[in-house]
Amino acid sequence: MEILVSEVGPRDGLQNVKATMPTAAKKAWIDALVAAGVKEIEVGSFVPPKLIPQLADTAEIVDYARGHAGLTVAALVPNRRGAENALRAGAHKLTLPLSVSEAHSLANLRKTHDQVIEEVAGVAAMIRELPEDQRPHFEGSLSTVFGCTLEGMIPDAQILSLATRLMEAGCDEVGLSDTTGYATPGEVKRLVKLVRGEVGDAAVQGLHLHNTRGLGLANVVAGIDAGITTFDASQGGLGGCPFAPGASGNIVTEDLVFMLQSMGFETGISIDGLLASRRIVADALPDEPLYGFVADAGLPKGWEAERAASETQKENA
Amino acid sequence: MEILVSEVGPRDGLQNVKATMPTAAKKAWIDALVAAGVKEIEVGSFVPPKLIPQLADTAEIVDYARGHAGLTVAALVPNRRGAENALRAGAHKLTLPLSVSEAHSLANLRKTHDQVIEEVAGVAAMIRELPEDQRPHFEGSLSTVFGCTLEGMIPDAQILSLATRLMEAGCDEVGLSDTTGYATPGEVKRLVKLVRGEVGDAAVQGLHLHNTRGLGLANVVAGIDAGITTFDASQGGLGGCPFAPGASGNIVTEDLVFMLQSMGFETGISIDGLLASRRIVADALPDEPLYGFVADAGLPKGWEAERAASETQKENA
Repeated sequence: MEILVSEVGPRDGLQNVKATMPTAAKKAWIDALVAAGVKEIEVGSFVPPKLIPQLADTAEIVDYARGHAGLTVAALVPNRRGAENALRAGAHKLTLPLSVSEAHSLANLRKTHDQVIEEVAGVAAMIRELPEDQRPHFEGSLSTVFGCTLEGMIPDAQILSLATRLMEAGCDEVGLSDTTGYATPGEVKRLVKLVRGEVGDAAVQGLHLHNTRGLGLANVVAGIDAGITTFDASQGGLGGCPFAPGASGNIVTEDLVFMLQSMGFETGISIDGLLASRRIVADALPDEPLYGFVADAGLPKGWEAERAASETQKENA
Repeated sequence: MEILVSEVGPRDGLQNVKATMPTAAKKAWIDALVAAGVKEIEVGSFVPPKLIPQLADTAEIVDYARGHAGLTVAALVPNRRGAENALRAGAHKLTLPLSVSEAHSLANLRKTHDQVIEEVAGVAAMIRELPEDQRPHFEGSLSTVFGCTLEGMIPDAQILSLATRLMEAGCDEVGLSDTTGYATPGEVKRLVKLVRGEVGDAAVQGLHLHNTRGLGLANVVAGIDAGITTFDASQGGLGGCPFAPGASGNIVTEDLVFMLQSMGFETGISIDGLLASRRIVADALPDEPLYGFVADAGLPKGWEAERAASETQKENA
């Protein structure tokens, strides 16, 4: 079975580090990710440059990344204006976050739920105006869905109602996002099933998980059990909300891919390739700590050979 | 459902740090662990003090720990001589490691498989001589069972044969130990089921997992799926084979308990209590890095309240 690993480092990672990665380094990073076999990259966010100067070159990066045939070029858009720019740049996938905690939504986007849904509907209308073969995939992402640092746990009814409203407003898909690192394996299973029950399995394919409390990969295992087939991750765990040394933000792409492959899932990604692209990040952001275990510990002895043998067995079966 | 968390920090942790924790600090740590609700502690190893001077006070620590009613006081024994001392000190549980990789066994214990099995049989004979109510639980631990840094993957047939021989030599239980940090969720499930199929479910209850490649807690989830009910862990991830900053050795007790409780399993352990006992370790070993995420990130907002509510629901159900 195939699992899609969506690299969000160039967006979620870079937006949360102080330094700005030079545009040339971003391009080299994306090249290396593609060379490693990564099939989807969230390359930036269409927000005003004064808010997130690290991502001011997002339009240029989208255009550059589109040069890689077969790569899905994703971008975050907070509103209609961002979506307009993303469409103009030619992004293949737009993700618009909706915080299920209204307090968090107001604090972060200064918008109520109604106002965000209005933006979603506006973006969907823009997309519908495009010729069918040029329409990007449009995901509404339920942020703080596993709990909020301001409001704590959000009632299921509110989550389900917002998921439905996102789909009715024109999203193709609803993602679940553990913005605060509150997710636990039990809650991942429960909530994925709950939201799938409300808007349909096909509309809930992706999870965005953090590793704040060390449960990131355990949550992936739970997500897979619940039918999830797309996981966001970030090289070196860059981004998210790191609290302290050792506490990475996003789940680490290298570790995630190692685990998925060890479980027999196909990702199409080479771990050696990921370690090479990780070095580009390390060189471009020398002051940023990079997290993850596989990069330090290496692969188990005989692991690649064993995988190759298992592939051969499959082919001969 | 109840899951037993066995704290191995005072043995596996302390044996792998350079500094020697003062006996008084060990006692204070054990007191704090018991106060937190920990029910089983591996308090030391009966090896010659010149080999592991950090654990030279193991007999005194076993005697002290026995003062805590209800606590299972466990100790590692490499051979008959160690077991003799452990029995004299009154340990409730003995664990004797058998590396399924013979190269590792020779390098570590300077013993072939046959020689280790002979020791196991000798220890079992000593135990049988005791009055029934004074016999400790005797576990044979299959080390490097998920792969060896010297030999790579070990053939299943060899693992199963050694598991059978351990049981036939008189062990009450066979544990699986990821000495090298090679375990992956798929392999955990597969191997637990395989060994259980060979020696019976009741004889395979425990896993000793490392977090070398970040998969520790994901492996726990897989272990639970396969029926495992006892997990070793170490406060702050102390011990094991750390490779680099961020790469803890043993799985971290605090994070494990958080995850288990979040999944609805009963551990009887208070996380606040664990954080308090962790501070004793930090004070006694100021130069040792302590790993884990929950200690840094804290518990999610509303988490304790939610747990309490869920307990009340259960009671009222």
